[in-house]
Amino acid sequence: MNTYSYAYPPDNLSPSHFHTLITHIKDYQANHGSLIKVIGHETQHSVLLQPVGTTVFPSLFPRRLFQQATDDLQLLYNELYCKLAQDPEWLYAVTAPLRKTEPLVDALWCVYEEVQRRRSSNDTAQCLVEQKVHAGIFRSDYMLHTGQHESDDDDDDEDQIWTRNMSLKQVEFNSYSCAGGCHANKVANMHRHLVQRGVYDFSSENTSTKITPSSLPQNNTIQGIASLLASAHRTYGNRPYNSAASCTAVLMIVQPNNFNIADERPIEYALWNWEDNNNPIPTYRLEWQDILRSTTLTPTGELLLRIHPSEKTPIEVSVIYHRAGYEPHEYDDNHYGKEIRIRLELSRAIKCPSILGHITTIKKVQQALTAPGVLERWLAPSKASVIRDTFVNIDALDSENISSVAKDQYILKPVSLEGGGHNTYDSAEIRNFISELPPNSPLRKAYILMERIQSPRNVYGVLMTSSRGVVADEVVSELGVFGGCLWSDARKEENNSCRVIENRVVGWSFKTKEIDVDEMSVVKGYGCFDTPFLIG
Amino acid sequence: MNTYSYAYPPDNLSPSHFHTLITHIKDYQANHGSLIKVIGHETQHSVLLQPVGTTVFPSLFPRRLFQQATDDLQLLYNELYCKLAQDPEWLYAVTAPLRKTEPLVDALWCVYEEVQRRRSSNDTAQCLVEQKVHAGIFRSDYMLHTGQHESDDDDDDEDQIWTRNMSLKQVEFNSYSCAGGCHANKVANMHRHLVQRGVYDFSSENTSTKITPSSLPQNNTIQGIASLLASAHRTYGNRPYNSAASCTAVLMIVQPNNFNIADERPIEYALWNWEDNNNPIPTYRLEWQDILRSTTLTPTGELLLRIHPSEKTPIEVSVIYHRAGYEPHEYDDNHYGKEIRIRLELSRAIKCPSILGHITTIKKVQQALTAPGVLERWLAPSKASVIRDTFVNIDALDSENISSVAKDQYILKPVSLEGGGHNTYDSAEIRNFISELPPNSPLRKAYILMERIQSPRNVYGVLMTSSRGVVADEVVSELGVFGGCLWSDARKEENNSCRVIENRVVGWSFKTKEIDVDEMSVVKGYGCFDTPFLIG
Repeated sequence: MNTYSYAYPPDNLSPSHFHTLITHIKDYQANHGSLIKVIGHETQHSVLLQPVGTTVFPSLFPRRLFQQATDDLQLLYNELYCKLAQDPEWLYAVTAPLRKTEPLVDALWCVYEEVQRRRSSNDTAQCLVEQKVHAGIFRSDYMLHTGQHESDDDDDDEDQIWTRNMSLKQVEFNSYSCAGGCHANKVANMHRHLVQRGVYDFSSENTSTKITPSSLPQNNTIQGIASLLASAHRTYGNRPYNSAASCTAVLMIVQPNNFNIADERPIEYALWNWEDNNNPIPTYRLEWQDILRSTTLTPTGELLLRIHPSEKTPIEVSVIYHRAGYEPHEYDDNHYGKEIRIRLELSRAIKCPSILGHITTIKKVQQALTAPGVLERWLAPSKASVIRDTFVNIDALDSENISSVAKDQYILKPVSLEGGGHNTYDSAEIRNFISELPPNSPLRKAYILMERIQSPRNVYGVLMTSSRGVVADEVVSELGVFGGCLWSDARKEENNSCRVIENRVVGWSFKTKEIDVDEMSVVKGYGCFDTPFLIG
Repeated sequence: MNTYSYAYPPDNLSPSHFHTLITHIKDYQANHGSLIKVIGHETQHSVLLQPVGTTVFPSLFPRRLFQQATDDLQLLYNELYCKLAQDPEWLYAVTAPLRKTEPLVDALWCVYEEVQRRRSSNDTAQCLVEQKVHAGIFRSDYMLHTGQHESDDDDDDEDQIWTRNMSLKQVEFNSYSCAGGCHANKVANMHRHLVQRGVYDFSSENTSTKITPSSLPQNNTIQGIASLLASAHRTYGNRPYNSAASCTAVLMIVQPNNFNIADERPIEYALWNWEDNNNPIPTYRLEWQDILRSTTLTPTGELLLRIHPSEKTPIEVSVIYHRAGYEPHEYDDNHYGKEIRIRLELSRAIKCPSILGHITTIKKVQQALTAPGVLERWLAPSKASVIRDTFVNIDALDSENISSVAKDQYILKPVSLEGGGHNTYDSAEIRNFISELPPNSPLRKAYILMERIQSPRNVYGVLMTSSRGVVADEVVSELGVFGGCLWSDARKEENNSCRVIENRVVGWSFKTKEIDVDEMSVVKGYGCFDTPFLIG
């Protein structure tokens, strides 16, 4: 059935072959911006960079599950999250209880409420033009799950771990400021290039694993993300509504001093070079703390941008692409986050995403969706069932059946923070934490318990990071699928809450870490960008 | 006539505007491989990189002279150097006197002679197939020259320095291992991008200088160099002559541990991605010291390549692209340079360039070409005259009229070494050197004296290098034009020494340094890559 063997990746390369291979990797990364800035080494006139962590070999992944994630699942998830973002009542019911303990959740709802208040107040309601079209760039993350029948016994026949008893389980769904797409694109191009030039043509006899270009899926995530923003820009229009403005433009909002610009800038470059530069889409970049100074909101709702205060002619923002504003501190009193988001939300620019779209990314939403019957609020039963198959058990800490859960198979996750860095994996630590919480503690609302995904064992890889060197070990991978959507409020005569204008898969990322490392973060030096070597 | 003003570049940018500008530059460089490796910081698993030196603003350059260099002059120079490379008698007469003092010159002639000897010896002559087609990638470097009528008086009307009393004078002609093309391509793309996104739209009133995309010439040097190699590869053919070989491929020969891979690797990538990957041209890379181990020469002259000795199936080399072998030490007894070049020369691969093509790059050749009537040996008088107009006076130290030369207007250059790092600019030092040389010293043959080019004054620029920070100063620029040629030995019935098959301009580089710095080397931190801002 499969032609691979578990001698993959090979461990018998000659030192010179291995040296050639990793030299190719470093040089490719240096030439293609597959890099991160070394923190603390940027000066006015220079900057130090180093390669982002990558795997030396593409890692095994079942072809049918890759296709399922990118062909079928993502379109359903896109549809679901468009509709969620149009359902403030449900979102409020699920997430508002967190407002007392979660400053970020509270800030987002404050922004939503203030925007509603101003829109309905007499002095502005007649003037501000409301944008009915919304954009989303999502990323749904999966790991392979081997189900209940898989044995952890190391003596098991290795072939058994790659049987059809494997499925995709969702780790998390991100609808705000999704990162990693540009890096994933570059690293996938790199592995394809290495395959093309024969670097993986192992001359040894003891492996039948042959990577061919068709084993590695194409990755065009940079172009894909840009294409969704380009669609949103076209929807807004090239001609400014405000007569003072010179043109319309996409505005990418970023955090200051980001050492990970190689995951942001390529999207700007792709838009400026849109259609081989025949149809450039002006795209500007503004740091979070400069938004209030560099933008103005006109009485009719155009968001005008002056990158430098001295500029006479402003630019009218067509699309706001958020790559900042996901950390609680950005909304504290010194950072004016609420004022910033209120101004942006009140504008007629298309938001990618809107404040409600942002709220859907809260982990509590992910947990609420797993309850029986919930998905059917937005989806036909057949679609809901496909999505539900990707869920593992997720429990609230305030749920009544929590003591029945085997805690040593679970991960404790905060409901509102992004990424894996804030999770607790140690079962004793989780048990202590829960047992010490009073039954009615508001902190119980701040966490969810998520069933651990049982990844296949005996999958090996070679990781290369600047911080930890070259490591050969048992590994586990995570597939992220990028979706892109454009939707509008439904017309009054329609029953739906939402009209989906565009629903696309715009790319994917693939990351791999050592199996006994909990965090997947690449920029912190744990995970590595990778390319799935599709088998089966 | 011209619309520029000498308030260029502006010195009144706000700190925040200037910060934005240089942040754009650093981030663009990081994302596009406009980088060099930091020496001493490459490990097995990582490498540190920093931006290559660039100008913050494109530098002024007369449009007609840029066009003259790229439209007219280069095709003539290409023709001249193809013919020179087919004229061993003349080359020998000019350069053989240097063999005693110049190990590199001697090594190259030793290789030539040994190849001739083996070709004519009975045991190999009947077998070895001789390659009649040759390739060249040249770079002719020019500076602006203001002629005799220009005054150095600082009180002069600034406009006078940009009058039509300006011409191109050749600094040097390189026919071997020409570098800088990839960096130049990336930096030109960067300046175009910055123009496109309005980073140079100065809001200040006191300059009428407006850079538009049409002010900056396109630079496609990476593609251009690759296209010449692709032509050579097609000429050789896709099908190996040797039945053991799997395919034919371009072989790029490089120096070990080069920190400047960003100027080499893009050519490999361009060939592998040839015609958007529809027609990839296999391209391999081999370090100088590995050539004897990794190649074999068949009795019929095919050069077979095994990157790793364990590989069973070799690749047949179609084109040898030299990016190493230009330093004397590479030919000393420890480095086997002569054996390496003999093997390569004896092969039927197309050499870019051949050993005679290499010999044409010796500075003594440049000097010899300036003597009256010499150019007419290969060129029609009308063509010779156009080329001669780009010459400044160059004298041999052994010439009889040397005392009549005003030495303080001259530069002392070694005849056989590449680049500006080995030159002497100080007139007292030059005078001392010459006066201490006995009249018949063989060292007299090792140097030439070249008239200093009188660059226009009062041209300003802002340079940014990792080693020296941001420097605003009076500057001088150097334009290098890349030519690409394919030619073959003439048939016996033809009178010419050479049939030119392809003669093209494949790109350009543009570098700028402070006017009182003698060296232009970018990798050493002096010069900066730049883009000409074409005016007039």
